[in-house]
Amino acid sequence: MKSALYLIPSTMSDAPVGDVLPAGNIALCREIKHYVVENIRTARRFLKRCDRDIDIDSLTFTVLDEHTSPADVPAMLAPIEQGLPVGVISEAGCPAVADPGADLVAVAQQRGITVVPLVGPSSIIMSLMASGFNGQTFAFNGYLPYESRARSEKLREMERLIRTRQQTQIFIETPYRNNRLIAELVSSLPSGMRLCVASDITGPKQEIITLPLAKWAKRAYNYDKVPTIFLLYS
Amino acid sequence: MKSALYLIPSTMSDAPVGDVLPAGNIALCREIKHYVVENIRTARRFLKRCDRDIDIDSLTFTVLDEHTSPADVPAMLAPIEQGLPVGVISEAGCPAVADPGADLVAVAQQRGITVVPLVGPSSIIMSLMASGFNGQTFAFNGYLPYESRARSEKLREMERLIRTRQQTQIFIETPYRNNRLIAELVSSLPSGMRLCVASDITGPKQEIITLPLAKWAKRAYNYDKVPTIFLLYS
Repeated sequence: MKSALYLIPSTMSDAPVGDVLPAGNIALCREIKHYVVENIRTARRFLKRCDRDIDIDSLTFTVLDEHTSPADVPAMLAPIEQGLPVGVISEAGCPAVADPGADLVAVAQQRGITVVPLVGPSSIIMSLMASGFNGQTFAFNGYLPYESRARSEKLREMERLIRTRQQTQIFIETPYRNNRLIAELVSSLPSGMRLCVASDITGPKQEIITLPLAKWAKRAYNYDKVPTIFLLYS
Repeated sequence: MKSALYLIPSTMSDAPVGDVLPAGNIALCREIKHYVVENIRTARRFLKRCDRDIDIDSLTFTVLDEHTSPADVPAMLAPIEQGLPVGVISEAGCPAVADPGADLVAVAQQRGITVVPLVGPSSIIMSLMASGFNGQTFAFNGYLPYESRARSEKLREMERLIRTRQQTQIFIETPYRNNRLIAELVSSLPSGMRLCVASDITGPKQEIITLPLAKWAKRAYNYDKVPTIFLLYS
């Protein structure tokens, strides 16, 4: 096995591992002994779900989260310099997309270390596939601003990018505010604009629904505390 | 098996199917009898690679490509209205992101049909993971404009979005122009800006390299005719 930094997607729900991850990923996890993880407890549980025969106690876990000092990041690559592979596992889904793993990847790239991304569930791509919206050009915006003026400016900007650039707009919200966000989109954007709400992706209650805002206005829904991603398009 | 529109990612290279697709996808392919595909020959070959015991000749394939009339799209959902699942397979990678499959998904959403995206290789997400760039906010721009004035305006705009929004910029080029594109980026953007070049993702010659443009300027490279995706960040 090549000494490299392997970016290992984890499950986003309790779906069987084989439903959302290639067998090749699990084979790699059986061999890697050094992991950089966002949370040790969930990473151990994830590896155990991949293969219950993995001897978790023989593995090394180093935490890389929002509290990690940048000065501590380079040392996490030490096993690679000794010819051993290192795996990166984040809390849910693909690592190093919107989590501190990206800092480790940046250091690895600076040092010319091979970085190998593995296939796994991405709520961004899966929701885009199922939305029916334009995938030739799209933007992921992360969380919408909380402060009300910045927030309405952001909505105006997204509306403009959809109209002038045909750019699909993707964003997320703190899960306990999901319902309020939909009401806000309904009241502040053109009623013909389409909203796709994709919730519990890969989970037992997965639901991906695209409707014009006028129809969301009349529809009963409850996404309270459910992981959800939102997409807007004309 | 639920009657729904299943979006089935295909392989992007000759990598073993089990390295890039979950076993769950292959199990679904064994059951689905009706497919909407971008190209029949490659879809048949893909299904045969998933499981050589699939009886390809018993399956129905309908072509949905750039020549398909929009009027012909709704009829492709007929099996679902009879309680049967339909699978969508595009040329490479995730269907309905940047191919005509999106039109079929849009019609399915209009009719309230369940749309189920499956996990598979996405060069956009995999290159973003391995770039070390900001994944909290990013834009996929598709192909850069060909016409030189529109093209330099697009480069200026991307530079501005990186500087003012910290938005990672992702784009592609016709493969035989890959080398020329890198030379152009080197000559027209700030030398400290970082370019990630991700080529042959999931393939035997996969290479994902992030370097400042000043280093790309001095480096020997050859991505001629290799499927490649480009990412820029400060």
